[in-house]
Amino acid sequence: MITLEDVRGAAGRLAPHIHRTPVLSSGSLDRLLGRELLFKSEHLQKTGSFKVRGALNAALQLGGPRGLVTLSSGNHAQGVAFASRVLGVPCVVVMYEDASETKKAAVRSYGAVVVDEGVSRLNGEERVRTIAEERGFHYIHAYDDPHVMAGQGTQALEFTEQTGAPDAVLVAVGGGGMISGIATVIKTVWPETRVIGVEPEAGDDTRRSLLAGERIRLEAPPRTVADGVQTMMPGALTFPVVQKHVDEVLAVREESIVEAQRLMMRHLKQVVEPTAGLPLAPLLEGAELPQRLGLFVCGGNWLP
Amino acid sequence: MITLEDVRGAAGRLAPHIHRTPVLSSGSLDRLLGRELLFKSEHLQKTGSFKVRGALNAALQLGGPRGLVTLSSGNHAQGVAFASRVLGVPCVVVMYEDASETKKAAVRSYGAVVVDEGVSRLNGEERVRTIAEERGFHYIHAYDDPHVMAGQGTQALEFTEQTGAPDAVLVAVGGGGMISGIATVIKTVWPETRVIGVEPEAGDDTRRSLLAGERIRLEAPPRTVADGVQTMMPGALTFPVVQKHVDEVLAVREESIVEAQRLMMRHLKQVVEPTAGLPLAPLLEGAELPQRLGLFVCGGNWLP
Repeated sequence: MITLEDVRGAAGRLAPHIHRTPVLSSGSLDRLLGRELLFKSEHLQKTGSFKVRGALNAALQLGGPRGLVTLSSGNHAQGVAFASRVLGVPCVVVMYEDASETKKAAVRSYGAVVVDEGVSRLNGEERVRTIAEERGFHYIHAYDDPHVMAGQGTQALEFTEQTGAPDAVLVAVGGGGMISGIATVIKTVWPETRVIGVEPEAGDDTRRSLLAGERIRLEAPPRTVADGVQTMMPGALTFPVVQKHVDEVLAVREESIVEAQRLMMRHLKQVVEPTAGLPLAPLLEGAELPQRLGLFVCGGNWLP
Repeated sequence: MITLEDVRGAAGRLAPHIHRTPVLSSGSLDRLLGRELLFKSEHLQKTGSFKVRGALNAALQLGGPRGLVTLSSGNHAQGVAFASRVLGVPCVVVMYEDASETKKAAVRSYGAVVVDEGVSRLNGEERVRTIAEERGFHYIHAYDDPHVMAGQGTQALEFTEQTGAPDAVLVAVGGGGMISGIATVIKTVWPETRVIGVEPEAGDDTRRSLLAGERIRLEAPPRTVADGVQTMMPGALTFPVVQKHVDEVLAVREESIVEAQRLMMRHLKQVVEPTAGLPLAPLLEGAELPQRLGLFVCGGNWLP
């Protein structure tokens, strides 16, 4: 469990290094969907995603590591690479061999070394631990780490300072790092606000886990356009927070995610990645949702 | 000729109806191109483009027209349709028959009637004048109108209030409405700042006209991805302003325009239309430009 104080501490630690991102809205989109929509815009964050918050908050509490290492084919990789630059230490990112060259190039552009030869979903975790042991580098997990969870919560802390309480907030759910941080803040500051997670139907491990009362593992990595939430199981540390603070998790269809991304680009004129469409997607499927909604936009690392 | 006072008047008239758009920047893009780039962001304007400024400024000075009519297959059409809603009068937009259905739908979404049957580049102007005469509607020209020019200048007036003087500003050039308004403001407020127009090589009628000392007409409509600047000749009213206030006009290749748009989406995370890539394009061709640059982003009506 993490507390609002952990998130406050993280916010102070991060402030010199990252952006306070704006809350955006679109009158035409509000009219189209019949809601008041407030978009907390982490696609405008350093590295193009909120992930830098958690990675850097963890890195800043290590007391001078020799280097950083992580396993990620997405935004967390750039977050850790950014953190290593802040610390002035080397960084290794283990990426699956079949990850796109664009993503590998993005990670290298932050000065990290990419290790990908022979790396698969079966041996990735092991490769990271080997590098961590052999080189004495610190492994920053993408979500199952209290410092990472507290860091991700700082976007919600900013949001509570930027606007009045919405009726509900909607948050994409992967391993649970983002929603556990956000839910901790929202339920402490605005106890009346509902916290709603959103997963692709293809990868609804957290929804199933909540229904089962225990962590359920999918049989295979989910095939979804929302490539930021392709985890197979909620985290051991994040899941209890989700159980405590999240009111419900909705699952949405692939075409709703794509249409949500398109609507955000068309009306907000913002470049967002498919995964950032998740919080808006339930509105396109007629989900019963209250009037005033906060939506957390996770990232903008996508090129048309 | 228009003056700074005309633009100030327009700004007061427009203020209750439109956005004051932000000036955006990107540290990573600045590092990549070795400049300080300030993007005046009219893709975030009402209707998704600066064109609403000129159209509405003209409409607000008509003293109760029966209706508005214009000829446009682009952002000016939406600007005039928006203006008609502010005035509460009907609006007819004459569009070329081969304009995209998406653009026609966008104009209809603002409540305007689209007339397109049998409309071509040969008879479009005549069709507008017929509608104007028969129905008593006022024809708002897309650029060759002092009220339109003054309205477009208001984006530059805001820019001068939002930042310090850059070494140069870069502005896309079509018929000359935008650059004549902007140049009037910049050269009055910041006489030391260079005003540089940018055209596609495929449609460099203004550059040729400046060299010739008189208005040159292209033999055919330019074929360019920058569909907001497909005029064949500078305006009769705009050209003298361009001659007086614009330091030079550069022409850029199609691939530079596309790459500029891509860079703006990647680094600023903003959805901009191809024509909005024009001001950035000369930097990708190694043009000799000073250090601190203001770039006017004309619009964001584009969908990946």
